[in-house]
Amino acid sequence: MINLLVIGTIAYDSIESPFGKVENVLGGSALHFTNAASFFTDVGIVAAVGRDFDLKDIKFLEERNVDIRGISIEEGNTFRWEGRYGYDLNQAITLKTELNVIERFKPHIPDDYLSADFIFLANIDPELQTYVIDQIKRPAIIVLDTMNFWIENKFSALMDAVKKVDMIIVNESELREMTKEYSLVKAARKIMELGPSCVVVKRGEYGVFMAERNGLFLAPAFPLEEVFDPTGAGDTFAGGFMGYLANVGNVNPETIKQAIIMGSVMASFNVEDFGINRIKRLGYDEIKDRYTAFKRCLNFGDIKFK
Amino acid sequence: MINLLVIGTIAYDSIESPFGKVENVLGGSALHFTNAASFFTDVGIVAAVGRDFDLKDIKFLEERNVDIRGISIEEGNTFRWEGRYGYDLNQAITLKTELNVIERFKPHIPDDYLSADFIFLANIDPELQTYVIDQIKRPAIIVLDTMNFWIENKFSALMDAVKKVDMIIVNESELREMTKEYSLVKAARKIMELGPSCVVVKRGEYGVFMAERNGLFLAPAFPLEEVFDPTGAGDTFAGGFMGYLANVGNVNPETIKQAIIMGSVMASFNVEDFGINRIKRLGYDEIKDRYTAFKRCLNFGDIKFK
Repeated sequence: MINLLVIGTIAYDSIESPFGKVENVLGGSALHFTNAASFFTDVGIVAAVGRDFDLKDIKFLEERNVDIRGISIEEGNTFRWEGRYGYDLNQAITLKTELNVIERFKPHIPDDYLSADFIFLANIDPELQTYVIDQIKRPAIIVLDTMNFWIENKFSALMDAVKKVDMIIVNESELREMTKEYSLVKAARKIMELGPSCVVVKRGEYGVFMAERNGLFLAPAFPLEEVFDPTGAGDTFAGGFMGYLANVGNVNPETIKQAIIMGSVMASFNVEDFGINRIKRLGYDEIKDRYTAFKRCLNFGDIKFK
Repeated sequence: MINLLVIGTIAYDSIESPFGKVENVLGGSALHFTNAASFFTDVGIVAAVGRDFDLKDIKFLEERNVDIRGISIEEGNTFRWEGRYGYDLNQAITLKTELNVIERFKPHIPDDYLSADFIFLANIDPELQTYVIDQIKRPAIIVLDTMNFWIENKFSALMDAVKKVDMIIVNESELREMTKEYSLVKAARKIMELGPSCVVVKRGEYGVFMAERNGLFLAPAFPLEEVFDPTGAGDTFAGGFMGYLANVGNVNPETIKQAIIMGSVMASFNVEDFGINRIKRLGYDEIKDRYTAFKRCLNFGDIKFK
């Protein structure tokens, strides 16, 4: 039985950064997410790949209890993305996008997946997100991600989906674009007025901002000496975040905050190598050690006032 | 006896932000710094003003034990700066700078000031910073700030000053420009190789990064609903930071981290109104309350691993 369901993309990425260049490496939102989440809970993945996809490449996920029956192999080629990063690595320049099988993707969700307690709708067409939400038969914590393309081209479908979920995870610029508010505090409040009880805002190398009904939380990013490839960092964060939540089994504010720290830990690994490589070879002890190192960078004791 | 000496500017600022417009309000690095630091320790301020300056305007500082004998009134007008902020408030657009008395400023430091245990060299000509350092007769913790203008125009003089101080406090972009390193971890290491044992990096709304010989520290900024005027936020941060250090009387890593939190608390007040207004009317209890609120936004308990 899976505990966490993700619906998103599997891709072949070609990436250029100041540190090197790779071609046709495994990527996509659902794969980055699953790669991270599978350290913490049993994940079921729903995504489409093409005839060119070799399932052997994701064999390692099954060793981490990932259920891959939700991956459907369809006529045509796997989704491909080609991008480049400049020196500051904050913004990807998309060089080429071949949607291929994604273009007509209609997720087929194995029946038993729909009993998962935690569901992550990665960045896909908001109409598909709603299509998935409507199939869910029992209470679950549903979390949604999106991107500027949908904000700009399917705003009202996106808002319909947002209204039906428990949390959203978005980038800082996306939240501002969605709400027309510069202030994250105000922007998050606008989203919470629509339905979600929690808004998680990714700020890249600057960490994460979170708002829930009773408070705010801020976490810096783990300080790395060098970032090799930020592709998939956001989905990896979401994977660590939701994997942790699903493992603990609740969404109390305290659990959400710890899940953000865990998501940040996982994202810090992801950017240390191209594609999914770093987290593919990651050990659980490394996660513990990085958490300890991260906590040391955040702790300041307590100030005593006179 | 003063405990903390600051050398910098006093200015009349004219500021436009999306929230309003003010003309000829009190500002300048030394004044913003002192305004914040005087909540924590006895400050002596060294700066030049013109004949147009009315000392009654800073009368309130004397009530906070600030020693203003170091302010010299010189022929000509007080330094004036005119700037505007766009919607994102991260970058000031300078509309006009009238150096006036600053142009030929040669700080005259009262003799007893030179026995202060903590010294802050605000953003002034690095040759003047060295001129001040060379007058100091006994061990003191010396901290230096600078700006892109000096990095671009007096780089070698600046590096001479940097070599002689214990810490530097700079903006993220300034540190990168100084070291030609994008990675803050690497950039801070380069500075520490020159002499300083601690590098404090201001990242505006994203908080603070700190490196010392044995570790790193990261603090987000306090989340505000609205930022009215960021002018002086960096100097206010430095004032809270150094005021706290001078009050505690040491520069252990733990004290430095707490000082960063206190600096962040003070900076969060500064941006809530134009110029020095907010901190001028601030009460000590408000500082305590904001610290408590800030701590709540940063605390995530502890993650237990299996």
